[in-house]
Amino acid sequence: MRHHASTLLAASLLLAAGAASAADTTIPASAVKTAEQLRDRALNDGTAYAVLQSLTTEVGPRLAGGSNDQPGRDWAVAKFKALGFDKVYTEPATYPLWVRRHESGSIVAPFPQHLVLTALGYSPGTPKGGLTAQVIAFDSIAALKAADPATIKGKIVYVGYRMQRSQDGHDYGMGSMVRVAGPVIAASKGAAGYLLRSAGTDAHERIAHTGVTGFRDPSKAIPAAALSNPDADQLERELAYGKPVSVQLDLDCGIVGEYTGANVIGEITGSKHPEQVVAIGGHLDSWDPGTGAIDDGAGVAISMAAAKLIHDLPQRPDRTIRVIAFANEEMGLWGARAYADRHAKEVTDFMLGTDSDLGAGKVYRISASVKPGARHAIEQIADVLKPLGVAYDPRRPGGGGSDLGAMHAKGMAALTLDQDATHYFDWHHTSNDTLDKVDPKELAQNVAAYAAWSYMAAQADGDFGSAPGAFAGDGAEE
Amino acid sequence: MRHHASTLLAASLLLAAGAASAADTTIPASAVKTAEQLRDRALNDGTAYAVLQSLTTEVGPRLAGGSNDQPGRDWAVAKFKALGFDKVYTEPATYPLWVRRHESGSIVAPFPQHLVLTALGYSPGTPKGGLTAQVIAFDSIAALKAADPATIKGKIVYVGYRMQRSQDGHDYGMGSMVRVAGPVIAASKGAAGYLLRSAGTDAHERIAHTGVTGFRDPSKAIPAAALSNPDADQLERELAYGKPVSVQLDLDCGIVGEYTGANVIGEITGSKHPEQVVAIGGHLDSWDPGTGAIDDGAGVAISMAAAKLIHDLPQRPDRTIRVIAFANEEMGLWGARAYADRHAKEVTDFMLGTDSDLGAGKVYRISASVKPGARHAIEQIADVLKPLGVAYDPRRPGGGGSDLGAMHAKGMAALTLDQDATHYFDWHHTSNDTLDKVDPKELAQNVAAYAAWSYMAAQADGDFGSAPGAFAGDGAEE
Ligand SMILES: [Zn+2]
Ligand SMILES: [Zn+2]
Ligand SMILES: [Zn+2]
Ligand SMILES: [Zn+2]
Repeated sequence: MRHHASTLLAASLLLAAGAASAADTTIPASAVKTAEQLRDRALNDGTAYAVLQSLTTEVGPRLAGGSNDQPGRDWAVAKFKALGFDKVYTEPATYPLWVRRHESGSIVAPFPQHLVLTALGYSPGTPKGGLTAQVIAFDSIAALKAADPATIKGKIVYVGYRMQRSQDGHDYGMGSMVRVAGPVIAASKGAAGYLLRSAGTDAHERIAHTGVTGFRDPSKAIPAAALSNPDADQLERELAYGKPVSVQLDLDCGIVGEYTGANVIGEITGSKHPEQVVAIGGHLDSWDPGTGAIDDGAGVAISMAAAKLIHDLPQRPDRTIRVIAFANEEMGLWGARAYADRHAKEVTDFMLGTDSDLGAGKVYRISASVKPGARHAIEQIADVLKPLGVAYDPRRPGGGGSDLGAMHAKGMAALTLDQDATHYFDWHHTSNDTLDKVDPKELAQNVAAYAAWSYMAAQADGDFGSAPGAFAGDGAEE
Repeated sequence: MRHHASTLLAASLLLAAGAASAADTTIPASAVKTAEQLRDRALNDGTAYAVLQSLTTEVGPRLAGGSNDQPGRDWAVAKFKALGFDKVYTEPATYPLWVRRHESGSIVAPFPQHLVLTALGYSPGTPKGGLTAQVIAFDSIAALKAADPATIKGKIVYVGYRMQRSQDGHDYGMGSMVRVAGPVIAASKGAAGYLLRSAGTDAHERIAHTGVTGFRDPSKAIPAAALSNPDADQLERELAYGKPVSVQLDLDCGIVGEYTGANVIGEITGSKHPEQVVAIGGHLDSWDPGTGAIDDGAGVAISMAAAKLIHDLPQRPDRTIRVIAFANEEMGLWGARAYADRHAKEVTDFMLGTDSDLGAGKVYRISASVKPGARHAIEQIADVLKPLGVAYDPRRPGGGGSDLGAMHAKGMAALTLDQDATHYFDWHHTSNDTLDKVDPKELAQNVAAYAAWSYMAAQADGDFGSAPGAFAGDGAEE
């Protein structure tokens, strides 16, 4: 999820309001009709769910660089081929290899209690035998920032921020900041370790939410873990007795080298302009405790199934539909950044793009970052998506998704398809990220939206404004 | 939870219908008034929640015979004393000592997947290095019973029964049968191990439900564990591929000797008939993954708080209010049976009793097994409980609860206070049995019901029919 300043965009929209002029990008009527058929067909198509079931059952968890990384890529290559994609290939991505071997923890005083916790990505391990230290608690990052380092030195910092539920999941902004920035701030003040209340909306599940931390310099990193919400409650109850509270952390994890994985890419090749692409996708890696169903098997399945529907049309689309299953999104967008670096020079060929990475809830809103002359085409797309319950918000930018956001930052015109994330953060980054959380009908609604807009972009008369650095003004940054 | 044949009782009720006669047991009007005050006071009294918070925070999990068994008893003795009970004592209970050291499991073929599981109480461990065997699946105990032993020998039996949610939790009858009887049946047919879909209504939580098995003869026991619901789904998906599915189980657990714990008892001593008791309580032990909040810290807290309210009246009640925190209910009612054996000869002194052991949901129904001449007094009790939302069902027997059911079987007149168990089996016997699942207001409603009826029984003119073997006819069995 990314947040953009929309002031400049709103201003440019005012200039663009009104009827389309002859120079504007438009979608031909025949393409609109085909897109409507794709949309309706998708709602009764089980391909995405079958793909997701296959991935989560036959491969399961896909920690970047872990034992399922190569099997996951093999699965993606085989699945693209089985679905009949015209071209299937991989492009390497190299990143630090982080491993999780063992994790446990407990309150040792005043009242011994087992703690359900999970180490954060890039957390180093604790010394052999574990780390035991007194806990100092904060209720926000602001309070931690304001704290005197002398009160923190040698202690385990705990931040107890409670992430709030919402349809758009916006509080993950603060939730993830507590996870990403918190450990770095605590380390800079001399903390021995870091604990947070899980960035999750499942207030009552004894399941912890992992996720990456913001350590850039491994020599300055400290052991960092997330407590399940009920365990955070327990810690806070013990703290409320007013006596010193000590916690023991035993984490065996850390960066052990470098790994070269790959983005796996499948294409439905365009018949007129094969070099011009509509880019969709999701990320193939997942956190290890679950099976990566909602994050982000769903995005991979939605984009594969959308392209497959276009593949099954009597004729290939004018432009190429490119589905990218990105490597290692979770630990820092490594696949996305490798992809954007490799393809920055071709950014003008990337007509329009976004990936799906917010689970399998229904798409309820669409927005776009395109040139003013393409706004009418976006309205045409929005009209086709409207029967799916998708509202068009012309004032919001399109961010391109977690991974294709990196291409948007290079200048690719981009959409955002907002999904209903009401329940997403109950399961996100936990063992609970499993297939049973996905409603096949809601998944199919996503496919309908992706198939329709991808096809329309592939058939557009004109472009959407992609060019090097074209969207720096709406908050897209490299 | 117990189930009774109610035919005989219904017949006896017909004879008893109509107005109370002079010989009937009645509650004096002054006692009714005091009971109403106790009820209303209880709704604004935080004692039960404070007791439960203290138990779950300061002690936590209380596996019978485990490292928290003695601390749990020490806590109960101290809490009874702190609340001002007139008499606090313990009575021993001896039982096999079962320990859980480590548990893990995975599907090894056709697709390797980690499994979230938990060993069942009295399960033996697997051989060092674990047990790997092919899985044979059944969807019910009936199907397992009907199976040819030749198809089962050497395999891991899996039973995939899905427990259904309801207000009265009745499907735990079948759910617990799959857990208690299933392993015994499988073992008798030569199975190498046993797995079940957890007996729980949390269809989507990656948390397994433990509980005791029915092994009577340790030499015939086989390793037995429960899968979380999503893991059961995963196993079933792999089975659906039609290839042999192998599972590896690594359980380090088993019976390691004998342990003598104790029931912990606190009394508010009766002023007129101290030897006559109204018996209430809950069980002090809990399963180890959670902190025993709903099962059954709640029962202990409700009964302690109800008695404390009676303690705080200007005068002691006529009869004794006895609160029993039972030992080792979970692995076979060991504390309850020791108690009933020890006190069987005094059964006539046990005026009326029931314990609370279905969580902290509101009481919604009351029923009784009493002599016909006490039915009017039960109606008086029911009238006082009615404003709490408690309905009286004169056709249902009173079972006396899980633990005091053993005294009912000896002839003690008994109530049943049915609690709303709609969510109880989401968390029952899991790591999720923690304080946050308890609504303080619902807990207080329970206290209101227990304080009111206990006091009324203590002040009754006449008895409720307790006598050796008095209730064999309504299904109460030793
Ligand atoms: Zn993601
Ligand atoms: Zn993620
Ligand atoms: Zn219980
Ligand atoms: Zn229980």
